[in-house]
Amino acid sequence: MLIVLEKGTAEAQIQAVINAVEKRGYEARPIPGGDRVSIGVLHNKGSVDAGHFLGLEGVKEVIPVTKPYKLVSREFQQENTLVKVGNAVFGDGSLPVIAGPCAVESEEQLLSIAGSVKEAGASLLRGGAFKPRTSPYSFQGMGEEGLKLLSRAREETGLPVVTEVLDVENFDLVEAYADVIQIGTRNMQNFSLLRRAGKSHRPVILKRGMSALLQEWLMAAEYIMEEGNCNVILCERGVRTFVRHSRNTLDLSVVPAVKKESHLPVIVDPSHASGVRDQVIPLAHASAALGADGVMIEVHNKPEEAVSDGAQSLYPGQFADVMRKMNAIHTIVGNS
Amino acid sequence: MLIVLEKGTAEAQIQAVINAVEKRGYEARPIPGGDRVSIGVLHNKGSVDAGHFLGLEGVKEVIPVTKPYKLVSREFQQENTLVKVGNAVFGDGSLPVIAGPCAVESEEQLLSIAGSVKEAGASLLRGGAFKPRTSPYSFQGMGEEGLKLLSRAREETGLPVVTEVLDVENFDLVEAYADVIQIGTRNMQNFSLLRRAGKSHRPVILKRGMSALLQEWLMAAEYIMEEGNCNVILCERGVRTFVRHSRNTLDLSVVPAVKKESHLPVIVDPSHASGVRDQVIPLAHASAALGADGVMIEVHNKPEEAVSDGAQSLYPGQFADVMRKMNAIHTIVGNS
Amino acid sequence: MLIVLEKGTAEAQIQAVINAVEKRGYEARPIPGGDRVSIGVLHNKGSVDAGHFLGLEGVKEVIPVTKPYKLVSREFQQENTLVKVGNAVFGDGSLPVIAGPCAVESEEQLLSIAGSVKEAGASLLRGGAFKPRTSPYSFQGMGEEGLKLLSRAREETGLPVVTEVLDVENFDLVEAYADVIQIGTRNMQNFSLLRRAGKSHRPVILKRGMSALLQEWLMAAEYIMEEGNCNVILCERGVRTFVRHSRNTLDLSVVPAVKKESHLPVIVDPSHASGVRDQVIPLAHASAALGADGVMIEVHNKPEEAVSDGAQSLYPGQFADVMRKMNAIHTIVGNS
Amino acid sequence: MLIVLEKGTAEAQIQAVINAVEKRGYEARPIPGGDRVSIGVLHNKGSVDAGHFLGLEGVKEVIPVTKPYKLVSREFQQENTLVKVGNAVFGDGSLPVIAGPCAVESEEQLLSIAGSVKEAGASLLRGGAFKPRTSPYSFQGMGEEGLKLLSRAREETGLPVVTEVLDVENFDLVEAYADVIQIGTRNMQNFSLLRRAGKSHRPVILKRGMSALLQEWLMAAEYIMEEGNCNVILCERGVRTFVRHSRNTLDLSVVPAVKKESHLPVIVDPSHASGVRDQVIPLAHASAALGADGVMIEVHNKPEEAVSDGAQSLYPGQFADVMRKMNAIHTIVGNS
Repeated sequence: MLIVLEKGTAEAQIQAVINAVEKRGYEARPIPGGDRVSIGVLHNKGSVDAGHFLGLEGVKEVIPVTKPYKLVSREFQQENTLVKVGNAVFGDGSLPVIAGPCAVESEEQLLSIAGSVKEAGASLLRGGAFKPRTSPYSFQGMGEEGLKLLSRAREETGLPVVTEVLDVENFDLVEAYADVIQIGTRNMQNFSLLRRAGKSHRPVILKRGMSALLQEWLMAAEYIMEEGNCNVILCERGVRTFVRHSRNTLDLSVVPAVKKESHLPVIVDPSHASGVRDQVIPLAHASAALGADGVMIEVHNKPEEAVSDGAQSLYPGQFADVMRKMNAIHTIVGNS
Repeated sequence: MLIVLEKGTAEAQIQAVINAVEKRGYEARPIPGGDRVSIGVLHNKGSVDAGHFLGLEGVKEVIPVTKPYKLVSREFQQENTLVKVGNAVFGDGSLPVIAGPCAVESEEQLLSIAGSVKEAGASLLRGGAFKPRTSPYSFQGMGEEGLKLLSRAREETGLPVVTEVLDVENFDLVEAYADVIQIGTRNMQNFSLLRRAGKSHRPVILKRGMSALLQEWLMAAEYIMEEGNCNVILCERGVRTFVRHSRNTLDLSVVPAVKKESHLPVIVDPSHASGVRDQVIPLAHASAALGADGVMIEVHNKPEEAVSDGAQSLYPGQFADVMRKMNAIHTIVGNS
Repeated sequence: MLIVLEKGTAEAQIQAVINAVEKRGYEARPIPGGDRVSIGVLHNKGSVDAGHFLGLEGVKEVIPVTKPYKLVSREFQQENTLVKVGNAVFGDGSLPVIAGPCAVESEEQLLSIAGSVKEAGASLLRGGAFKPRTSPYSFQGMGEEGLKLLSRAREETGLPVVTEVLDVENFDLVEAYADVIQIGTRNMQNFSLLRRAGKSHRPVILKRGMSALLQEWLMAAEYIMEEGNCNVILCERGVRTFVRHSRNTLDLSVVPAVKKESHLPVIVDPSHASGVRDQVIPLAHASAALGADGVMIEVHNKPEEAVSDGAQSLYPGQFADVMRKMNAIHTIVGNS
Repeated sequence: MLIVLEKGTAEAQIQAVINAVEKRGYEARPIPGGDRVSIGVLHNKGSVDAGHFLGLEGVKEVIPVTKPYKLVSREFQQENTLVKVGNAVFGDGSLPVIAGPCAVESEEQLLSIAGSVKEAGASLLRGGAFKPRTSPYSFQGMGEEGLKLLSRAREETGLPVVTEVLDVENFDLVEAYADVIQIGTRNMQNFSLLRRAGKSHRPVILKRGMSALLQEWLMAAEYIMEEGNCNVILCERGVRTFVRHSRNTLDLSVVPAVKKESHLPVIVDPSHASGVRDQVIPLAHASAALGADGVMIEVHNKPEEAVSDGAQSLYPGQFADVMRKMNAIHTIVGNS
């Protein structure tokens, strides 16, 4: 349930409404809007009687929220959430691009790539220090050493860094180095990790699970927001289907569908979706044309030597060309 | 197996190679290329001994074809197939657009829509006279009456018309009226229908089956080409997945994948893929950005009154806007 | 809408109700039940006013049918449809088994297999004379010659024969030889073929489409029943999923789901579902345990020499063992 | 790589082979077999030269392991792994059944159900104390209080208890109470959790991920085994497909496929697969017929009042009937 207050309701009245909500055993969550405040009612079981609140001073209307998710819902908050990182803003109609290698491999590798993507116009640098790998015998990432190299690359280029956290145990560590924390596909429903991310002061990129329904994905974001962190960026990265000519199937329809249901920004990762360079390039252009709130692309200075996902990483020159075209396309369509 | 001849090989020598192939019990299929002719060897069981043909006059080389499909394969023909209809060319790097209603409903409806899409820049008019419907109790199309209205719209606007054929029984009838014949998703592996289409002198749009692998789709095209009709246009229209926020999931990766495997043009139908107008528009832009060889879009003058698929049909004004943006995007990316 | 008549309503009164329905422009379809008759109202657009019929003599009640399908629905007919072929009955709680080779290859092959499966207790012989093949270069079946061999095998063994029809063109031919006509997966929504099957006096096995929803499958059966043929047997044969360790994924849940929605018998084909002998055997046992109305299994006397689907065909000895176990399991669980 | 030793090789020779392996920088993992020992070579990058070990005393042969997984593979260990819990054995050809409520709700509920399932012949009691829930607003389980009730139920009935662990943080706690630790579908690739489970002295039930390939599932088990815990039981519980008549699609083919690839026991959970009682019963029978190494079923004394998954929970009387039939079926087919 959402209690919408009159414009200019005084702080004391707002507090009185909150108290009324809490007295009934629910949680009250103030939601600042453009020119008025609303109060979300959480943790109710079943429906709440609107009559309890309609008569209170300052209450304009009481709206039942019909979605299973609340905080992430457009019913709760009509304006787009804007997530600001460095000079980039996700959700304001611009097209910030996150680029970098799949995994941090060495100082030379990372600085070389960071320089290239910065020059091509990327807004953030990505790179994995802790890698989720199907096999226990595969390279698991450089760990803290990798995080330090990301810091170093940030100093050199000024680009904020995005890196993945795999578990609660390493969260503090990753949080200390990263500007944006990524929660990967396999962890989309790792609820302890989501709750920990909800307590972080860092923005979170929440990748869609391999076979997650839209509602499940938004619910996972709800776990983060429910703990107090509103800076959530959703990232579509392809879903598992019967298809065999690409690693996953990029579900572009989900971008307008998310925007309809939620105020959170949503970006697209064409690299993990397709798994092959020849497909990443056209899918990156398509993502820009779609009106996504950003794009995340893997770039490597020597893809053929990459320890992971080399086949899907663009060469720096290819990336620069993709950037030019994505920007030109974005000028035409804007964000949907 | 593909027998590549020297440039400028004389007709008599070409015939001699063909005879040699046929004498061994295979079928010989001449494949004209840019500046030389090749001879495809069909209907062999197991591998064919290259030695039989290597010594013949005019034979430059003999290439084993490793794909299960042959005539559709880039191994057989490197240059793009160009399918010309009216002023439109599919496969030459341009972006022809096919637009119109799901079903032909009346003269007024069809002429109104035809006029709108022509003005907005569409190259072909689509409209169903025979409709494949899940339920026997749903509207099944106007039949021949609908075909006549399509003819009438062609006269009025000059736009060639695309319409679906459902079965061999009505093929002659549809062929008599249509400029391009569409074989729908549910018929992708209706082999009798494919063979009949292969004997047609009309270009064929072959929609991808609901859960067809790339190879199965190309094989279906092979059935058509094997009967002698080389004017096949492939059309991606979304595949069935677990996803519920759209009717199907548009598989854009398949476009670059088709282009790598085959010389046939491939277009995208975002209307059937998503099933909702809000998604069709961004997906249309994405299709243009992808480098597809064309786009097919449903447009209706009064979508809210359409007898079928109203929710996915664009209003004429929306379509005109989409056309402008698709053309601008196409200028940036070209065809991949 | 379903008009339920009183027990023992006289023929004249039944006819009067039918006339009343037809006078309103609908089609009336009498549905014989255990001890009373009902009249189905077809071809209405929108809902029908029950008041028109409630006052008629002999009318006990009028039930709105909420399902999109009608004739196939349990709402229309509560008792199981029994399809009788030779000594076998599908739908009466027994477990008839259809067995035989994928394709008819030769007299020797067919008679050898027919003898084996008869001895092991199969009730019907299967064998394809017209084969739907992904590639135009694969063996397409023996055609009429194969049908003649099936006839011959029937004479020898007394087993009724099941064989697939691929198109309307060959329907008369297949109908002349077959006891049961099979419509394959790729043709589940070949509506012309379904309508032709609806005019046949032969029972029809309707295989589920590769990615058909339950409702789409029942709607396809509705096409057949709507033309007047009520002897439809549904056959689950695996659906397409992301899974790679089997050719398709057998959807056993669909069997109880069909039985809840429809009165039609439903059988299971574990051979096409899995594609590997090692999986066919346990899945056959599972199908019997599930309470299916029958099982269809591929058997070959020399699987390693089969022209198609050899890997999934059981050896005669394996089949005999599977039959023994399926019958013993069926004794325990009965049909659900 | 697997180094197979002669029968009766002395301990000192075994140790010498291990030393030789370790000297080359690899890890040696002794694998006890029926009458001989083998040594697995782990953590090699690329292939290992067999010549290094072939000449050593006691070495019979050196087998390259071609699978990406090793410890879980039948190539590494031919005999079935037997996991013993209380009186139950998973993997020896018997059919132990795990039954109980989705979530522990109260002492009365748990003891009532535990008594019923014990009487019906279940070997282990299941019940969730920490529940993975899509929504943060749903009941999250009783936590430690629930674990204590499980302990109490074990004392009362003698049944060992199975319960899920959601994260590394609560692992010690769950381990202190549970006899078998369950890792759920959403955590199948929570690699930190898998590694922690690998250090546990408790057997682990590893549920298959919602859209996990067979290889990914076995790799997840490899993470556990690689840390030293060999008591892993795999559990199929349905995968996500396009299907809508059941919550998930139970993939029974995976059972014979697992048994071919791996020596680990594999059980089936028909309750989560289908989500509806009417389907759970026939799928339970089918699971027994399939030759699975066990079955896990949800049972509730008052399903209509259950806080979660009531619709899929069997009534105690239904469960007793299912047990009788599963046991009778198992007598017929044994384990595959």
